[in-house]
Amino acid sequence: MATRELTPQDFETLLEFSKTLAQTAGKIIVEGSNAILNQDQGNVDEKKNSVDLVTQWDVKVEEHVKSEVAKTWPDFHFIGEETFSSGSEKPSLTDAPTFCVDPIDGTTNFVHGFPYACISIGMFYKKQPLLGVIYNPFLNEMYYGLKGSGSYVSFPYLDKPLRLPIASQRSLPSLSQALIGVEWGSDRRLSVMQQKATSFLRLAGDKDEIPNARMAHSLRSLGSAALNYGQIARGGLDIYWEVGCWPWDVCAGIVIALEAGCYVTGSKNFFKAHRHEEPTLMTDWTELIWGRKYIVIRGIADTPSEKGRDAQRRLVQDFYDSVEEWDAI
Amino acid sequence: MATRELTPQDFETLLEFSKTLAQTAGKIIVEGSNAILNQDQGNVDEKKNSVDLVTQWDVKVEEHVKSEVAKTWPDFHFIGEETFSSGSEKPSLTDAPTFCVDPIDGTTNFVHGFPYACISIGMFYKKQPLLGVIYNPFLNEMYYGLKGSGSYVSFPYLDKPLRLPIASQRSLPSLSQALIGVEWGSDRRLSVMQQKATSFLRLAGDKDEIPNARMAHSLRSLGSAALNYGQIARGGLDIYWEVGCWPWDVCAGIVIALEAGCYVTGSKNFFKAHRHEEPTLMTDWTELIWGRKYIVIRGIADTPSEKGRDAQRRLVQDFYDSVEEWDAI
Repeated sequence: MATRELTPQDFETLLEFSKTLAQTAGKIIVEGSNAILNQDQGNVDEKKNSVDLVTQWDVKVEEHVKSEVAKTWPDFHFIGEETFSSGSEKPSLTDAPTFCVDPIDGTTNFVHGFPYACISIGMFYKKQPLLGVIYNPFLNEMYYGLKGSGSYVSFPYLDKPLRLPIASQRSLPSLSQALIGVEWGSDRRLSVMQQKATSFLRLAGDKDEIPNARMAHSLRSLGSAALNYGQIARGGLDIYWEVGCWPWDVCAGIVIALEAGCYVTGSKNFFKAHRHEEPTLMTDWTELIWGRKYIVIRGIADTPSEKGRDAQRRLVQDFYDSVEEWDAI
Repeated sequence: MATRELTPQDFETLLEFSKTLAQTAGKIIVEGSNAILNQDQGNVDEKKNSVDLVTQWDVKVEEHVKSEVAKTWPDFHFIGEETFSSGSEKPSLTDAPTFCVDPIDGTTNFVHGFPYACISIGMFYKKQPLLGVIYNPFLNEMYYGLKGSGSYVSFPYLDKPLRLPIASQRSLPSLSQALIGVEWGSDRRLSVMQQKATSFLRLAGDKDEIPNARMAHSLRSLGSAALNYGQIARGGLDIYWEVGCWPWDVCAGIVIALEAGCYVTGSKNFFKAHRHEEPTLMTDWTELIWGRKYIVIRGIADTPSEKGRDAQRRLVQDFYDSVEEWDAI
């Protein structure tokens, strides 16, 4: 099965399968949230430190997803957050269809009842991101996309999904006009926190007073990498940057973002080396996907003086000229 | 009219009036958002600096609210964000019923299509917050409350509003377990930004490495003071702190939060002076409401060893022992 070629019809079937799976997983997530919030935060474990949380519900949702996948697509590969945590190898991407799943992205939000947690179901095929589904069961919002077929969002109060981006791909002259997604993450060591705080201060601070500052419109922190990708894809945030994510946090988001005209790249060095490549044509995503450093910028329309892609690259360069970068643990 | 006593029946009528008004105002807000996002951010003006934004839609919504209020309650006083911006006095609270309205709270989000903007309609009566309605027309979520009658939230996918808080008033042993709302605001001067960044770093940073750090679960930034109050009231965030808000940002939120068992207070000095007062019994809110510095913490149930109010006060004290404070401009 894994070695036969997937057809476009298979892609559609896999997308529908993933959307349905996200919804059944979402029911478990909501059940888990209610249980945790009404039993005084029991069953929350700390992973690397007291802010890196995992619950029995992360494990439960991943088991559900894995078993559904195994039933329907027994030969497909599977990379999941909880599966990985209990092992240690970082598998290279292969040509085989590979589900890449974060059972609960935004676990801290989930534990607190802050309604920005989701399941993120992505798939790699032939070393490239193929499809993605991001479902927030608290708001009942679903982002999804399939390579070459566009990406969409569905809201509980609309009959039909909307094509992404929702808004026009309006101009973004500079970072001063940007609304930027950043996160505090779970790495709280002094050296890292100083670099984060300095970077955020430069992004938001007054250009006249602070060296290398950009004075962006503002910074937002929602606490879910996948939902941040969704916001970039819809056009509600302009740029999202994070050090420390994993493939399952971003795989689905990358497909959805690329299909909405976003530009996606990796670390400062990755961007430097691959700046002139078109991300939708990149043939092996292994380095980027395991690189732990990601930046994504929303779609910008071409103008007579500048292609949208060039504007995106110019803004990413300007962003990286402003912020610090550190090694993820 | 303004001098006659309002009856409990009047309170109910005013709450229903405000809810309906928020919904009609919400339609204008969505219309404005669509217009701005599809005409390349036209008609956005800068107030104090390039990140303090106001649009023709803020003005339009406030005019709508003012005129509806004037038709129905001609003798009531009115404090509105846009009305105030064009004047300069800071009116003391009086016994007269006084609407206190932010036509669009989260204007930066509104301009960007980031779906966390709302109208906030509050009312003071006899120098105390009486009622509040916070409506986010992008998610179709409404928080509302009336002094002595509880507070509620309505969601588009539920038939009936839910009493706040949604979750149990679970324990919060220390700030290490807290999910904290903070904002970067519009004051971007170097001195202020350094104090903000230092404060955020201490709240999130590793206690073993950083003096005075609390290593909270994490920090969130949504970009709307009123919706942050809503999150605290529902129990999705634990603490929200901001320097620089105005009465119209917080009036509605304060009623909704207090009715959900939250503790609300002002600056470090205000808290020191009024720590032992019960906020729901405070007879003149003028000092707090114009103080520009606010902190609110979610409801915590009594335990055999500590009253919920005492836990809230202990955590606010611990919070203020960790962060810097600066003067709002």
